[in-house]
This record gives sequence, C-alpha cells and structure tokens, in this order.
Amino acid sequence: MRTLFHLPMDPLSRTVRIILREKKLDFNLVYERIWDERDDFFSLNPAGEIPLFIDQNGAIIASFYAIIEYLEETYPENTFSDKNPLMKAEIRRLIDWFNGKFSREVTQKLVFEKIYKRHVLREGPDSKNLREGQYNIHAHMDYICYLIDRRRWLAGEELTIADFTAAAHLSCLDFLGCVPWEKYEEAKDWYMRIKSRPSFRPLLSDQVPGHTAAEHYANLDF
Amino acid sequence: MRTLFHLPMDPLSRTVRIILREKKLDFNLVYERIWDERDDFFSLNPAGEIPLFIDQNGAIIASFYAIIEYLEETYPENTFSDKNPLMKAEIRRLIDWFNGKFSREVTQKLVFEKIYKRHVLREGPDSKNLREGQYNIHAHMDYICYLIDRRRWLAGEELTIADFTAAAHLSCLDFLGCVPWEKYEEAKDWYMRIKSRPSFRPLLSDQVPGHTAAEHYANLDF
Repeated sequence: MRTLFHLPMDPLSRTVRIILREKKLDFNLVYERIWDERDDFFSLNPAGEIPLFIDQNGAIIASFYAIIEYLEETYPENTFSDKNPLMKAEIRRLIDWFNGKFSREVTQKLVFEKIYKRHVLREGPDSKNLREGQYNIHAHMDYICYLIDRRRWLAGEELTIADFTAAAHLSCLDFLGCVPWEKYEEAKDWYMRIKSRPSFRPLLSDQVPGHTAAEHYANLDF
Repeated sequence: MRTLFHLPMDPLSRTVRIILREKKLDFNLVYERIWDERDDFFSLNPAGEIPLFIDQNGAIIASFYAIIEYLEETYPENTFSDKNPLMKAEIRRLIDWFNGKFSREVTQKLVFEKIYKRHVLREGPDSKNLREGQYNIHAHMDYICYLIDRRRWLAGEELTIADFTAAAHLSCLDFLGCVPWEKYEEAKDWYMRIKSRPSFRPLLSDQVPGHTAAEHYANLDF
C-alpha cells in the first residue's frame, strides 16, 4: 500500500493528497510529528521533512518537488502538467509562487504562528507576524483575481497542480478563518470550484487538537 | 540573445549560470537589484524574484524550478537529469535539500547576514544568525561526505544538477571564507572536481562591492 507521511495543516502535504486522489491512487496517511525527530522517520528521509511518499513498490520519494514530478511521470492518468514547455513553465512558476513567496509572506506568518507555535513550542503567537500575514494576504488575493479574470484556472484554461498548490495554502488559512473572501469574488468562485471536487473533501474534515475550523470551512457554498 | 537576470551571490542564479554554460548556451547576464523593485522587472516577473530567464525566442521563464526543468526539456544536450524516475527523484530530493534545508540553516544565515544586510539594509549582521549558520554547516558537510563516500557524485554515479545546486551554495559561502574544508576531505575533493569545470570559472571572478573573496576562493587547488 502507498503511504504518505504528512501533517494536516501542511500545504505541501495537502497538495500531494489532492493529486493522489485525483489520480485515483489509494494510500494510507501517516500523521508524522516531525518535531519528535523519530529515528525511523529520519532513516526514510534524512531531511526529517514532510511530505514523504512511499510507493507500492517500496520506492521512497522525499521532498515536494520530487513527489509531484514522480507522480506525474509514473502515473500519467489525470496528469495536471501540460505537455507544452511554456505552459509547464507557467505551472511551475505559480507552484513556486505559492510555496515560496506566498508561504513566506502569508502561510508561515499565520499558520506557523497560530498552530505550530501553540502546539509544539507552547508559545503564544507573535502579533507582528500575525499582522503582517493578515496584511500581506490582500496582494496575493488581488493576484489570484487578476489571473482568474483572464483565465479559467490559475495557469490557463486547464486545471493544473498550480491550482491545487494555491488552494492547499488557502485551505489552511481558511481553516483558521484568515481569508478575506468577501472582498475577492473571483478568487472565492475559483476556490469553490476546487473545494467541490471529491479529491478535496477529505481535507475538509481534518482536525487540529485545540482548534475548531472556521464555521464556513467545510461548506461547499460559503 | 538569451538573458539571465541574477545576483552574483544568489545560489539559485549561480546554478542556472552553470547549467547554461554546461549546455553551451550563450546568454547575457543582467545584475538585477531586486530590492529596487523596478517596474520593468516586475512586468517580467510579478514575484520580483531572481533568477529570471528570457530565452532567445522571447519566452520568459520565472522561478528556479521552472527554469531548470525548462532548460532540461528544451535543450536536451548535456542533460543532467537521469531518465530513470527513481534517480530523478533522488536528484530532485537533493536539489530541495540544498535550496530548502541547507539554504534556511546555512546560506541565509551567513550570506544574507554578511552581504544583503550590509549592502541593502545598511545594518550589521545578527551575530546569533552567524553563529547558528557556522554551527549548522558541519552537519551538512558531514552529509556531503557521507554521500560522496558511497557515490561518485551526490545523486549517484553521474554528475547532475544536484551537484551544481550544492556547489552553488557552497561557492557563495566559500567566497566569504565560511566553509570548514579542512575537516571534510571528501567534500573538498568533490567540490574541487566541480570547481575545475569550465562552466564554473565565471563564478570565481564574481565581485561584490566592499568584499574581498577569501584567499583560496578562485584557486582550483586549494
């Protein structure tokens, strides 16, 4: 059986979960408390990081980029990378946008502060980071609207991994009630289209001890 | 003519420079002061980040992953990604190791503090970050030695982009005299093999205003 080591509020793990389900690949989820630094986990991935994927033949695939490219190559059913090199470059640019810039400016400042710091470090959140994350999200929501105004999906006319990556980040923030949807109609409409996919459903029942999901988090029509 | 927007002490830009030369592709280098946030640059890359590559047909390729995958696909001469999916996963795992974990734990703490903070923010370096970076580098040097003890190159028997990525990070640190080579013979031997390649030479004459490269930086036999 395939296995994915993950954390529920990790956007990279969420993206892989969506892709695995879109490709109709069965897998077990293992909740990996990476801060415990288990020896058994380090022997699978010396970086000690999630997501980590083990395929049914035992192949161990570590790191987000290795996993998504491996899945695209190994399981070509429902492949979300266009064949055209320029379109692939656009998809990868947007994946990097959300896992790089968006993550640094928004996700880490809000999700890290509100969840990881509280549960792992047993500290209160840094209010400067919370303010900055909540401020920074607006420019990114504007950018999503800008793209969706010109294209059906983020990278073009087709649904791609860029959409899953962006939605994975937003879903963690939405769980915490941090997304100002009311000001960004196009982004909300785009997110609803992804949220209503069967591949997305399991994410909507994820739980985090000590946190209640925002009221609208699991609603398909919010 | 192809163009690469870069900064001399950015490991991502350095990796792309090496690959372009290994593939024997001519290009112009543009020194992009990203902190000036030029409108013309934002119109090319809304993320405002380097490296940014413009191909001879005018195609604009933004973000490190998009660039390296695009170059591998578009210019198959001297391709440094193996064809085997597991070997490709190993290459990408190591690229992520150096651009993720190594960058956060070492490069950012030393290169950012010593160069960017001084020249752009006009601040002194944070001594806690410097200490941490100089401490953290040892575990990574150990890991390079561990790999090189078992394989000719980092990802296996062939030279790959994983080697260029790791060497690009180490070269920035070496410029600053921060690499404890004397304790890590296998790593030093591996680095010398990359450093002596013609594709690497231009990096050895890079200059940074206000900094003198460490004495051995440009020596092929150091």
